[in-house]
Amino acid sequence: MPRKIRAVFFDLDNTLVDFLRFKRMCLEGSVEAMIDAGLKIEKDEALRKLYELYEKYGMEYKHIFDDFLRETMGEPDPKILAAAIVAYRQRRISFLEPYPHVIPTLLELMRKGIKLGIITDAPKLKAWLRLCTLKLHHFFKIVVTLDDTGKRKPSPEPFLLGIELAGVKPRECLYVGDREEIDIFGAKKVGMLTCFAKYGGAEYKETVVSDYVIEDFEELLEIIK
Amino acid sequence: MPRKIRAVFFDLDNTLVDFLRFKRMCLEGSVEAMIDAGLKIEKDEALRKLYELYEKYGMEYKHIFDDFLRETMGEPDPKILAAAIVAYRQRRISFLEPYPHVIPTLLELMRKGIKLGIITDAPKLKAWLRLCTLKLHHFFKIVVTLDDTGKRKPSPEPFLLGIELAGVKPRECLYVGDREEIDIFGAKKVGMLTCFAKYGGAEYKETVVSDYVIEDFEELLEIIK
Repeated sequence: MPRKIRAVFFDLDNTLVDFLRFKRMCLEGSVEAMIDAGLKIEKDEALRKLYELYEKYGMEYKHIFDDFLRETMGEPDPKILAAAIVAYRQRRISFLEPYPHVIPTLLELMRKGIKLGIITDAPKLKAWLRLCTLKLHHFFKIVVTLDDTGKRKPSPEPFLLGIELAGVKPRECLYVGDREEIDIFGAKKVGMLTCFAKYGGAEYKETVVSDYVIEDFEELLEIIK
Repeated sequence: MPRKIRAVFFDLDNTLVDFLRFKRMCLEGSVEAMIDAGLKIEKDEALRKLYELYEKYGMEYKHIFDDFLRETMGEPDPKILAAAIVAYRQRRISFLEPYPHVIPTLLELMRKGIKLGIITDAPKLKAWLRLCTLKLHHFFKIVVTLDDTGKRKPSPEPFLLGIELAGVKPRECLYVGDREEIDIFGAKKVGMLTCFAKYGGAEYKETVVSDYVIEDFEELLEIIK
């Protein structure tokens, strides 16, 4: 007998939103703006250096353009630095979009009476900033962030808090995420059904076997019939 | 015999850009977003409280929404806070525009061979961020900021540095600004010609008599014929 799904939880980055593409668009805009403002560098080389800095300091590193310019030109030219920051800000606000079919699918799940939640490792304000920028902040009553439990996935705490807030049993929940060892493994361990978001671009090694694998967000509607 | 003007220097806020209107639009967007996100408050009351905070901490105060929400609801709801920040960021990027006739007038001055510069009390990065957002960063080779002299107008240092960078005599310069005691008095003191930007909305008391007063930016072209 198929299990009845009453709540669906989502990871944020690369599950609801194509974060890597978004980041790439922001950086490309910044590099073009820096070149326009007078920086002498090839676009590809600049992007390579910027990604190296993200790898070193994390994808949310605030001082990436200062560091990049210091490496590239010594003391950063404030005009070039400002051009990078403004271009980044413009794209950050304009280009953060949910994956195709995310909004109609979420609405359809709501119409079916399914509870929707977010379980993310992002800090609370960061998570809400992302949701507001995506205009998804009214879609989720349950948003579990790093600040709520102090634990990151695959620890059970964030998953268990989501389940508790939804007032359902673990086996009535589906968790959708793009990282096998973190999202799928963590959700499975607490007894949730799991769905691997293959469109997120991460490798799916099947070392942790997910109950479902989707290539398009709207396939969720076939899982929850 | 009329003096030959070879360089024109500008103040930034309320001279090239309508900063007060811009700030109002950002705040209105944020207030509407907070109300949409669930805050129970009248729009006018919220705006009044926000302006009080700006008055207390300065117009560039970073934590205005945290403070406002703490006053209004106790512990800030992260959804409401994020909604305010995202709306502010969206408007900050989209609604910062030069006053009417600024761009064609600057281009016409350039065609006449006049040197253009900025002399502002803003810190260096802030000034360049503003210029980049306005897409005016390529218009000015000379940008004197607070960091360059450590002195604010009406001190002579920022004006003298601008004159030096332009390689002209003080009496060959026109300074355009919207604050009589700061911009006009300061520029006059070092021997520049002065122009009061009346459209900036500040009171013109004529305690310091400006050589020129303009109500529209393009009137500069009549001064510099």
